[in-house]
Amino acid sequence: MKKNTTTPQRRNFLKNLGLSTLPVLLPAASMASELTWDTSNQQQVPVNFIFDGLWFSPQAYLDKLQAINQKQAIAPDYYGNGGATQKLETAFAKITGKEKAIFLPTGTMANQLVIKLLNGNNTKVLVPENSHVFRDEADAAQEVHGKRLVPVGKGKPFFELQDLKQTIRYYNEGEVFRSGIGTVVIECPVRRADGAAIPFNTLKAITNYCREKGYKTHLDGARIHLASAYTGVSVAKYASLFDTVYISLYKYLNASSGAILCGKAEVIDQLTHQIKVYGGTAFQTWNATAMALHYLEGIEDRWKKVKVNAAQVMSSLNKLEGVQINKLTNGTNIYHLKLDKTIDLKVLANTLFKGHNIWLGRANKEGIVKFTINESLLQRTPQKIVDAWKQALGKAKK
Amino acid sequence: MKKNTTTPQRRNFLKNLGLSTLPVLLPAASMASELTWDTSNQQQVPVNFIFDGLWFSPQAYLDKLQAINQKQAIAPDYYGNGGATQKLETAFAKITGKEKAIFLPTGTMANQLVIKLLNGNNTKVLVPENSHVFRDEADAAQEVHGKRLVPVGKGKPFFELQDLKQTIRYYNEGEVFRSGIGTVVIECPVRRADGAAIPFNTLKAITNYCREKGYKTHLDGARIHLASAYTGVSVAKYASLFDTVYISLYKYLNASSGAILCGKAEVIDQLTHQIKVYGGTAFQTWNATAMALHYLEGIEDRWKKVKVNAAQVMSSLNKLEGVQINKLTNGTNIYHLKLDKTIDLKVLANTLFKGHNIWLGRANKEGIVKFTINESLLQRTPQKIVDAWKQALGKAKK
Repeated sequence: MKKNTTTPQRRNFLKNLGLSTLPVLLPAASMASELTWDTSNQQQVPVNFIFDGLWFSPQAYLDKLQAINQKQAIAPDYYGNGGATQKLETAFAKITGKEKAIFLPTGTMANQLVIKLLNGNNTKVLVPENSHVFRDEADAAQEVHGKRLVPVGKGKPFFELQDLKQTIRYYNEGEVFRSGIGTVVIECPVRRADGAAIPFNTLKAITNYCREKGYKTHLDGARIHLASAYTGVSVAKYASLFDTVYISLYKYLNASSGAILCGKAEVIDQLTHQIKVYGGTAFQTWNATAMALHYLEGIEDRWKKVKVNAAQVMSSLNKLEGVQINKLTNGTNIYHLKLDKTIDLKVLANTLFKGHNIWLGRANKEGIVKFTINESLLQRTPQKIVDAWKQALGKAKK
Repeated sequence: MKKNTTTPQRRNFLKNLGLSTLPVLLPAASMASELTWDTSNQQQVPVNFIFDGLWFSPQAYLDKLQAINQKQAIAPDYYGNGGATQKLETAFAKITGKEKAIFLPTGTMANQLVIKLLNGNNTKVLVPENSHVFRDEADAAQEVHGKRLVPVGKGKPFFELQDLKQTIRYYNEGEVFRSGIGTVVIECPVRRADGAAIPFNTLKAITNYCREKGYKTHLDGARIHLASAYTGVSVAKYASLFDTVYISLYKYLNASSGAILCGKAEVIDQLTHQIKVYGGTAFQTWNATAMALHYLEGIEDRWKKVKVNAAQVMSSLNKLEGVQINKLTNGTNIYHLKLDKTIDLKVLANTLFKGHNIWLGRANKEGIVKFTINESLLQRTPQKIVDAWKQALGKAKK
């Protein structure tokens, strides 16, 4: 009961993602009930161009878990021990090439606890200005853990080695009572930069420097598989640069919630106690971890297909009059869609949603729709998706 | 991946509950896989005399959520806002008679955060020695929140007003640098005292005194409905004595995890930020809250029936040779079962489990089985349960 009304909060939730993804088909508060995305009356499985994942309704979520359980009985965990949760931890340790992995209820807890542990008695943590840890974790580092987050690369999609060096100099040379810098955090792909994947050489240069200077490194890899899918750099290769890596379970692995933190045993072994005292040791988590485990299996092959299908869809759509979908610098699964003024976006999105169960986000102030690719593209052939767009564009022509 | 092996941990989990509830039918490590309670091959829905709730397998949990969703579509929450989670919060605010209620991922987080908030700048919190907050929350208060937990009533099932006064005197009169006592915590029913419900007059005397002296009061009411069911004191009446009350969602409301904290708006409104910075703001929680909401509805009526059925079952069992089930002082849903030496408990429990899907816990060192009543008793008629026992006792006779 955070506030007294529900609807405005949900709208804010979607708006505040900073994605401008609130579908144009839901512009009025009176229609906000549709935000539950209950498409159970629809004949077709949804294809969405809004989220990183499938964005299940409760019905779809339960159906999927039932199917997973039918295939092989889900083993429950108890307080995070055993069962699907342990299987997922084992799988992630292997994928990231780290000694151990551990489940946490949120990415915020994963980032914050590991930063605290890596940082030791040092007070400063260098983080990207354009990051979840700096902008979306509500000053947890300062308020809860007594660590000061120092932003690097202000105004940039991501910082370069020279930005980092400059920031370090500013503090190390300019403060009379010099206090320690312990850890450097990098987020990749960068959510607040439309999913930009930081070039591997940049990551390598930064982490090499950190290792040389004795700074610990943490990767906020909430969506690391999305970077991998587009750069061809494996998750293990990304992870190898860092002491620890956090990966989200709900952004593209379709779990209801949860996070995984991977690293050396000497770090991860400390987490069990830390998660407990910070209040994160939930009774059972298989509801989330069994789902993530399912979508983790074969993810690389599926994303290869997603990319092929997406390329076909976008190539075809780009040939249609008034439609322009542009790739971004260092882009991953997010593109910029711009429509000619002769096309009514609202009518287009409404027609796609109601007639074809295809979801399209709303435009930002610059008239750009963040056109987001995800596994829902595998639910239908590219041709069917393009045909739906053609029909809807016909209706949306002013 | 807390450790390298699963099985010993799960065994420890059950053992460490302090209930000695690890079923006697699962004595050997080689059988520990059955700890998942996968009874999908069984014809009958389980009746358990071990837990406070139904202890669903993943299959049973998913089936139940599907049924709930079929009856009325579950509305999802987003980061705890809206949907089933908000409905549950509203319901709990009403039930406890408090202004507001909020969902948290764990009872530990609920207890710890509210103690911190209630205590203000005071450093000491008085807690029952025999409590979850003192024994099962891993020094979170001291380590994370800088609050010192002072145990009251050492060695007793629960403390009385005179114990509290004595402890307060010890600190207020005996310390040179007197530091503040801010909050008094009470747990009811007391898990570590076989579910004893503290007499209402004792609670009233203590909380009246606290109010008079300006101490805040928090009720760890993880299983408060179980106290209500046996004492006839309503949840609202219990809650009315305290500033805040926490109630568990997974102990008898059958959710996979979660907790609810209720109190005045001025306290609960602070929790949204607190939960976020401590890492508890999970993406979606309807998986747990829709289940708890379902079992919250009509709980009082169901427990009236549970008590009637349980009385019939226990009365009949007590007439059987060699079986003795005893009520406890201030007891709620836990009884002490003692078997005559002529009965082999292991054979009895095995026969009940394999032949009738009835679960019985193992005995403690004193030969006592904690015979626990819960809603699973409503799954079968008392007569059928008693008949099953008769058959199993016949087999278990040495």
